[in-house]
Amino acid sequence: MTIQQRHFVNTQDESFETLSRILERAAILKKTRQDPQALKGKSVALIFFNPSLRTRSSMQVAVYALGGLAVPMEAGKDTWPMEWADGVVMDQAAVEHIKDATKVLSRYFQAVGVRSFPDGRDWNEDRLDPVIQAFTRYSDVPIINLESALYHPCQAMADLQTLLEKLGPLKEKKVTLTWAYHPKALPMAVPNSFALATSRFAMDLTIACPPGFDLAPEILDQIRANAREGGGRFRVVHDMAEGAEDAEALYAKSWGSLAFYGRQAEGQAAKEKFKAWRVTPDLMRRTAKGIFMHCLPIRRNVIADDEVVDSPASVIYDQAENRLWAQKAILLDLLSA
Amino acid sequence: MTIQQRHFVNTQDESFETLSRILERAAILKKTRQDPQALKGKSVALIFFNPSLRTRSSMQVAVYALGGLAVPMEAGKDTWPMEWADGVVMDQAAVEHIKDATKVLSRYFQAVGVRSFPDGRDWNEDRLDPVIQAFTRYSDVPIINLESALYHPCQAMADLQTLLEKLGPLKEKKVTLTWAYHPKALPMAVPNSFALATSRFAMDLTIACPPGFDLAPEILDQIRANAREGGGRFRVVHDMAEGAEDAEALYAKSWGSLAFYGRQAEGQAAKEKFKAWRVTPDLMRRTAKGIFMHCLPIRRNVIADDEVVDSPASVIYDQAENRLWAQKAILLDLLSA
Amino acid sequence: MTIQQRHFVNTQDESFETLSRILERAAILKKTRQDPQALKGKSVALIFFNPSLRTRSSMQVAVYALGGLAVPMEAGKDTWPMEWADGVVMDQAAVEHIKDATKVLSRYFQAVGVRSFPDGRDWNEDRLDPVIQAFTRYSDVPIINLESALYHPCQAMADLQTLLEKLGPLKEKKVTLTWAYHPKALPMAVPNSFALATSRFAMDLTIACPPGFDLAPEILDQIRANAREGGGRFRVVHDMAEGAEDAEALYAKSWGSLAFYGRQAEGQAAKEKFKAWRVTPDLMRRTAKGIFMHCLPIRRNVIADDEVVDSPASVIYDQAENRLWAQKAILLDLLSA
Repeated sequence: MTIQQRHFVNTQDESFETLSRILERAAILKKTRQDPQALKGKSVALIFFNPSLRTRSSMQVAVYALGGLAVPMEAGKDTWPMEWADGVVMDQAAVEHIKDATKVLSRYFQAVGVRSFPDGRDWNEDRLDPVIQAFTRYSDVPIINLESALYHPCQAMADLQTLLEKLGPLKEKKVTLTWAYHPKALPMAVPNSFALATSRFAMDLTIACPPGFDLAPEILDQIRANAREGGGRFRVVHDMAEGAEDAEALYAKSWGSLAFYGRQAEGQAAKEKFKAWRVTPDLMRRTAKGIFMHCLPIRRNVIADDEVVDSPASVIYDQAENRLWAQKAILLDLLSA
Repeated sequence: MTIQQRHFVNTQDESFETLSRILERAAILKKTRQDPQALKGKSVALIFFNPSLRTRSSMQVAVYALGGLAVPMEAGKDTWPMEWADGVVMDQAAVEHIKDATKVLSRYFQAVGVRSFPDGRDWNEDRLDPVIQAFTRYSDVPIINLESALYHPCQAMADLQTLLEKLGPLKEKKVTLTWAYHPKALPMAVPNSFALATSRFAMDLTIACPPGFDLAPEILDQIRANAREGGGRFRVVHDMAEGAEDAEALYAKSWGSLAFYGRQAEGQAAKEKFKAWRVTPDLMRRTAKGIFMHCLPIRRNVIADDEVVDSPASVIYDQAENRLWAQKAILLDLLSA
Repeated sequence: MTIQQRHFVNTQDESFETLSRILERAAILKKTRQDPQALKGKSVALIFFNPSLRTRSSMQVAVYALGGLAVPMEAGKDTWPMEWADGVVMDQAAVEHIKDATKVLSRYFQAVGVRSFPDGRDWNEDRLDPVIQAFTRYSDVPIINLESALYHPCQAMADLQTLLEKLGPLKEKKVTLTWAYHPKALPMAVPNSFALATSRFAMDLTIACPPGFDLAPEILDQIRANAREGGGRFRVVHDMAEGAEDAEALYAKSWGSLAFYGRQAEGQAAKEKFKAWRVTPDLMRRTAKGIFMHCLPIRRNVIADDEVVDSPASVIYDQAENRLWAQKAILLDLLSA
């Protein structure tokens, strides 16, 4: 019998029990401020193919608080070109195969965190989440997804923790994920993971986005299945005001259109007519005195007005703080015996 | 009653008692080699908008020695463009507002060190020290200045510690800060902080610089007031030999001219006639067997001759070492209960 | 009496007793998994003039495991231009002299690791290994070579540990270092150190390389002397199949030709006729069921075929892992009382 190596790559791969246990642990850690030294003598690599300050900070502090060592490595594609495909004659730019890099990291570290944004050119390639998948294929230690082409599960766990703190038990709570205008076509990892995670907890979830900005069909199918199986509700609307109506939590986030994937300039032109998709005090008044959420960094007065971002209803710094507690809980779940 | 958050940004903001307490603590730490583990479980972010090896090394080692975790982050303006102004519609390059970044760092770290050199184009902007001031405005934890547009207080504390070690009690000791030629227009943070700090301790301070290279009028006013209130003396001379006469400590440093601020090429041309402002063995003979000081890095045989830099009178490595001890004392002052 | 500062720069500088003691310690550390906390409160700087992930990871984890703090610094020549020569008027690009940087590091750290590849333009300069030599000249604490222009002693110690694990006592074991084709002219540090180290242990060493790709004459002289004094054997052959014959270990590695040093394009053209120098399953069948070794990163299907790299005979991940154990043993040898 072979035991499959455990990873933390996508909340969909985790049982409801595991997600609940992590959330409970995160809440207890935050309340008691007692960090078990379960990572004493253990090391965690943090590989960043894309730069990060928030994720890197919170992971370094989380690992340290549990007694371990985090080793961040900024592996820009320019400085550490890697080969992903099998059987290739490596006589071009790539100097190392991801297989070998991963096998070596498994000898030095007890876990490996990986951040790797989508390449952004070809959806048929990015939809396979190739970098994080290559790491999980070869690693002998747990891989933790610090945001991949498709998923950002650590953010989603922090978001669930924040919802629990602010709204109480999640069942039937009305939460809306609304698209917002942004000058660039951003990845879908955060909205994917937020919708996939909340739909597991019997919430009443709405996604509001302009026509043509729906999440990928396979993701929407999973969200629907989650809602059905978990006893929740799910709908998509293409009007921001309609989406905000009576929401107990309004989560703003921009993302690119699949219809223009890899064609940034064309996508940008098509997007200009949705510039009014911005969270204003007026929009917030439509909610049920809802909280305002965003994963940060946020472009102020583009995604949402200063009056919203700085209002008492805004829980954006709590979401950021909960990255720390959620990630401690994830590390303990993966690494403590 | 609101309690103002304590920071360490400028020695002028600190009471004489605080500065004296830090110096005493630094000396005891160095003598006893007993590091209290007061930062156990605490984390300190070190944000570098400009590269650093000396400051980063000494801070990382200082935090570790006290039991804590330092997390250095190199936030080059290119990789992490930030907005400082309030109310801006952030649809340009800046992806995050300094307010949000600072609020988030306050959730992860117990203190934040910041290095941010002046922009160097517009004195009316740089004189406000905008980056470090933005951090102090929004931070909920102590901000430690690791060299800003105007001040380098950690260097000044290390310099005072070195003066105490080499000259004994500072009262009435004759110290000269002399300008020296350098191919670039350097910032004024080190000379500002050195003069502001020494003038608090009743020293007999001379600044020697070419005409047109005086420190900013508002800084000179503060130095004069410090001398008057502290019982010391202060004068400015525009002749290097005159400045060196009878000095017990000669501190060499280059800085740019305010008259040519932001106009590097013109300032350079105007500076060529002061190439002889270099510390030579002849100049050192004019001093009262004075020590030679410099904050490093030093351009040898431009700022000072090898014979001076490598002489027994040179205390440059002690100054560098004292960064470690002074910073430990500052950290303890800010972070231990 | 002056005591010479101990460093770890080249296995040739170390006694047979020291090398044996380090290997024994590395094996015990690996077997017992008991890390003595001998570096508690000690700090080790890791200066990288060239990027590194494997060396940096293994050193950071090694220092942490022994209770200390490793501070990696990426000192690209562009960002931290340094002067090496004495007496220079430093009015050009270099802002700091290596002497001053090293003296300051000696005040903060208990040891300094340095990685500095050859400049690759002028063999008469690179053969002096100028960067690492400058560090050892000025440092007051041990310098550890993390790969210099000429030597990679940490890799060599990990390779010896791997040979001991896989082949048992080294005396008279038949080991072959074979050149392999690679699209770039790589440095000679790894082959130099592998041959210099194995020839100390009475092995039967063969180097196989194309005509014109011999290691430097002074290195070959030292290898021959090592073999003579240590009771081993050494030969050079210019045929890959002949070199592989009956080998108990086959170590593949590419390196550039001294005849074309600094002339990459010409050297490349001259090298094309040796593209068949690649480790294939057929070649491995000529060995005495030998193990396959490489220091990584490896270009698959260029240096060696996938079937070789992934075969049970391949010990490449063990070599990489042994970097960790060998470096712990080196650190303990240098830094524990």
